[in-house]
Amino acid sequence: MKFSVIGGDLRTINLAKMLADDKNEVYVFGMEKSEDIENDRKIIKCNTLERVIEKTSVIIGSIPFSRDNEEMYASFSENIIKIDDLVKNNYKEKSFGKVIDIMKQEELVVLNTIATAEGAIEVAIKNTDKIIHGSKVLILGFGRVAKEVAKKFDGISAKVTCAARKNTDLAWIKALGYEGVSINELGEDLKKYDIIINTVPQMIIDKEEMKYMKENILLIDLASTPGGINIEDAQKMNLKFVWALALPGKVAPVTSAEFIKDTIYNLIDLDL
Amino acid sequence: MKFSVIGGDLRTINLAKMLADDKNEVYVFGMEKSEDIENDRKIIKCNTLERVIEKTSVIIGSIPFSRDNEEMYASFSENIIKIDDLVKNNYKEKSFGKVIDIMKQEELVVLNTIATAEGAIEVAIKNTDKIIHGSKVLILGFGRVAKEVAKKFDGISAKVTCAARKNTDLAWIKALGYEGVSINELGEDLKKYDIIINTVPQMIIDKEEMKYMKENILLIDLASTPGGINIEDAQKMNLKFVWALALPGKVAPVTSAEFIKDTIYNLIDLDL
Amino acid sequence: MKFSVIGGDLRTINLAKMLADDKNEVYVFGMEKSEDIENDRKIIKCNTLERVIEKTSVIIGSIPFSRDNEEMYASFSENIIKIDDLVKNNYKEKSFGKVIDIMKQEELVVLNTIATAEGAIEVAIKNTDKIIHGSKVLILGFGRVAKEVAKKFDGISAKVTCAARKNTDLAWIKALGYEGVSINELGEDLKKYDIIINTVPQMIIDKEEMKYMKENILLIDLASTPGGINIEDAQKMNLKFVWALALPGKVAPVTSAEFIKDTIYNLIDLDL
Amino acid sequence: MKFSVIGGDLRTINLAKMLADDKNEVYVFGMEKSEDIENDRKIIKCNTLERVIEKTSVIIGSIPFSRDNEEMYASFSENIIKIDDLVKNNYKEKSFGKVIDIMKQEELVVLNTIATAEGAIEVAIKNTDKIIHGSKVLILGFGRVAKEVAKKFDGISAKVTCAARKNTDLAWIKALGYEGVSINELGEDLKKYDIIINTVPQMIIDKEEMKYMKENILLIDLASTPGGINIEDAQKMNLKFVWALALPGKVAPVTSAEFIKDTIYNLIDLDL
Repeated sequence: MKFSVIGGDLRTINLAKMLADDKNEVYVFGMEKSEDIENDRKIIKCNTLERVIEKTSVIIGSIPFSRDNEEMYASFSENIIKIDDLVKNNYKEKSFGKVIDIMKQEELVVLNTIATAEGAIEVAIKNTDKIIHGSKVLILGFGRVAKEVAKKFDGISAKVTCAARKNTDLAWIKALGYEGVSINELGEDLKKYDIIINTVPQMIIDKEEMKYMKENILLIDLASTPGGINIEDAQKMNLKFVWALALPGKVAPVTSAEFIKDTIYNLIDLDL
Repeated sequence: MKFSVIGGDLRTINLAKMLADDKNEVYVFGMEKSEDIENDRKIIKCNTLERVIEKTSVIIGSIPFSRDNEEMYASFSENIIKIDDLVKNNYKEKSFGKVIDIMKQEELVVLNTIATAEGAIEVAIKNTDKIIHGSKVLILGFGRVAKEVAKKFDGISAKVTCAARKNTDLAWIKALGYEGVSINELGEDLKKYDIIINTVPQMIIDKEEMKYMKENILLIDLASTPGGINIEDAQKMNLKFVWALALPGKVAPVTSAEFIKDTIYNLIDLDL
Repeated sequence: MKFSVIGGDLRTINLAKMLADDKNEVYVFGMEKSEDIENDRKIIKCNTLERVIEKTSVIIGSIPFSRDNEEMYASFSENIIKIDDLVKNNYKEKSFGKVIDIMKQEELVVLNTIATAEGAIEVAIKNTDKIIHGSKVLILGFGRVAKEVAKKFDGISAKVTCAARKNTDLAWIKALGYEGVSINELGEDLKKYDIIINTVPQMIIDKEEMKYMKENILLIDLASTPGGINIEDAQKMNLKFVWALALPGKVAPVTSAEFIKDTIYNLIDLDL
Repeated sequence: MKFSVIGGDLRTINLAKMLADDKNEVYVFGMEKSEDIENDRKIIKCNTLERVIEKTSVIIGSIPFSRDNEEMYASFSENIIKIDDLVKNNYKEKSFGKVIDIMKQEELVVLNTIATAEGAIEVAIKNTDKIIHGSKVLILGFGRVAKEVAKKFDGISAKVTCAARKNTDLAWIKALGYEGVSINELGEDLKKYDIIINTVPQMIIDKEEMKYMKENILLIDLASTPGGINIEDAQKMNLKFVWALALPGKVAPVTSAEFIKDTIYNLIDLDL
């Protein structure tokens, strides 16, 4: 098959290389500063956005797509690639056929929780001066990321408590061997935790809750903007806080690229 | 509060006792052969179905409800309790207010997977002459029961493979650390498994698949009627087969009663 | 190589078959009631003790060896095989070359802990009416059996506490993620456990400790005679007690035979 | 009780503070650059080595003790503290009563394996661009550090293989659920591993083994000088290598101090 890949970070670099290794015909633009790409003879480098788009019928946009909703993200390029130009050339439902947000494909979201959980462990080990083993970890939420984070912290012998709203989630928390608490009843009990990890993209923790916490608590927020932990309150109260975003691209770009590739293949399979 | 409990097995016996211990007013019928109930002064024994029904507004039917859809199940009673009589007295949406199948409450279904998984482990240890540790176990399906069964077998160091249909399930199987295979592609590979556990209530395994299996394989079916493994084929081919149904009531009647009690309380809470 | 195998239980039966499957020349005596042996053409059946001994230079005695120190154990035979006859024929250090108690080889003792731990899990599930998941389990001692039992119960989400004497053992208990208590300080705290498993072959638990225990506690003794739990006291106090001995031969005779075979091969290797 | 603490790193700083928090009388020297110590009113700061030694009968030397066998290690001091001066003042078996190398106390060595294993996980996550989950990890040796490292990597779903020499160790490796290989037979099979972690303080891996490895392998050496992996060979062959020493003091100085404190208390208990 033929693929075009535009800009992005280490994940799209690796993705392009893997697609080429699988004997696909691969066109790229917006990666000219990557030596890996430049030295890969199997990959065809295009000089313009027009070129890379016209070559193939499967166009893989930058990952992450954009920081400002104007320019496509491209950390290995000095080109400015305007989203508008992509649209102008081709970006209409009609001409593209289908626009799919790969990163939101359920399958890929699940696979990405692995790297997120490993990244959270790295953050926890690095930002504490105690062992994680035996420490009390509270995880807020029990969605996909939380399930994997709980499993990994349990796997290195942390004492894991998960906070959720629904009785079904609380039943799962019990069935998976963790302690469970109602997320609506977080109060004085917060004082027993050494690490609190938020996974809910909605404000849950601010000074009202922080006042109960240990002074050397570590707060980790894994939720995307606006996050679930009030940063300013954490700073005012001098609590250690890490907002750990986009971990898969940081801690495991090669695996992330593999998972993206598999997801793309599965999407194409389904479509044929 | 006031509760009526009718018939059932060890679970309703224990449930009645626990409700009474929690200072509820508890009326029972169809348990006269249980010494535990007879000796429990806090429980009020009724002589007829009419009596036990008229006393309270929360009536807990037999668990399991019925084997033949005519009589209510009551292993600790010599009374024949006809479902029709229950209906005649009261069994209309209008008069009962609400009819809820507790055993199908998501929360309870999840909690019951724990006892099911432990029961499956007991069955496996008992019915093999090898250790489970290191043995290759294939679990068919990746619903609620399968998730817990996989976790428990993994916990005692079996090598767990799960077979599922959907890419999202296969992603979860990977994220939880098991091997995954497509349930549509079960064939010659079946020869490597020592134990196969079905959780899908739909015929999946018959002689076509069995012909690939080890001759000393252990087949365990956890799915309710009609099950997913063809019994006759298993018998013809002389494969060891255990149809393990209703494990929670068998291996952990007290815990099951606790979970049912919690679920009832949660239902009443929600309703108020 | 040539091997003689005499009497024993399912383990020696399987051992003889496996040795034959590995293309060894195998002579047996004291297994005439086993159809498996009778139907196995590769195995040479001897009619007398003299015969089976004179044929080979590696003689594998019955497993278990004897119940009364007079007759060799042979559950698949109607012959009475006197230990004295074995000795008379050959049983002197000089003539045998070397006498090794296989079952005490460190390597085999360790491997046998796996089946013992699985057996203990089966006993626990079978003899309680609650789930093991989340139950509080106290393991007495932290030797080889205890280490494996702790791992398996932890693996199915029991809350494991181990009682040991030495600081080094208590350090290991902590490092492996369990709770630890000093075995010298067992007292009122005993009331919190649902299951207590002894692995120490020395009296540790009698009525002094039992008086603190839950009335529905399950006591499992895995230690050989005299065991570590006072049976009479347990009976007087009406506590549920299971003395689970020789589990590997019961729950996993085939695996046990494999491990014995591997150990024999390793011993012979070392010797050559 | 009274304690003197001299020099060292964050561990002795924390140790001094914890001893003081436990209401001991604590004298320190060689920590004047630590604000934590300076601001802790409970701790008595001495100006000279003589002073700190004469005050108490339990003297805790710097941890780590020395880098060059001439000066005591003291990262929070500008003083040069000569080991000879300690000796001159007091360092004779007779006058000290007893000299104990705390860091080699079995109990403490075991507890320190926890932080070492967590440090190894941090190193692995940080130095790979793939997830650790599902990756093939080979651990060389099966001593105390290896046992804990294996458990932690297994806990985050790596596929763990351990290489050992003795049959008993190989039996334990199997009983704990890992794959085992003979450390004497490392050869072509090395190509399947993504990460190799050495724990043996003896040269095991050089270019002979490296020639089989994946080009993007990560080599982690946890063994103290001389280590078990030839650094020069790794550099020549362009393999990623991390020599991760003294991890407990780096990743968990507070926990390490706690464990040292507990060990000191236990030693004193035993002695009284």
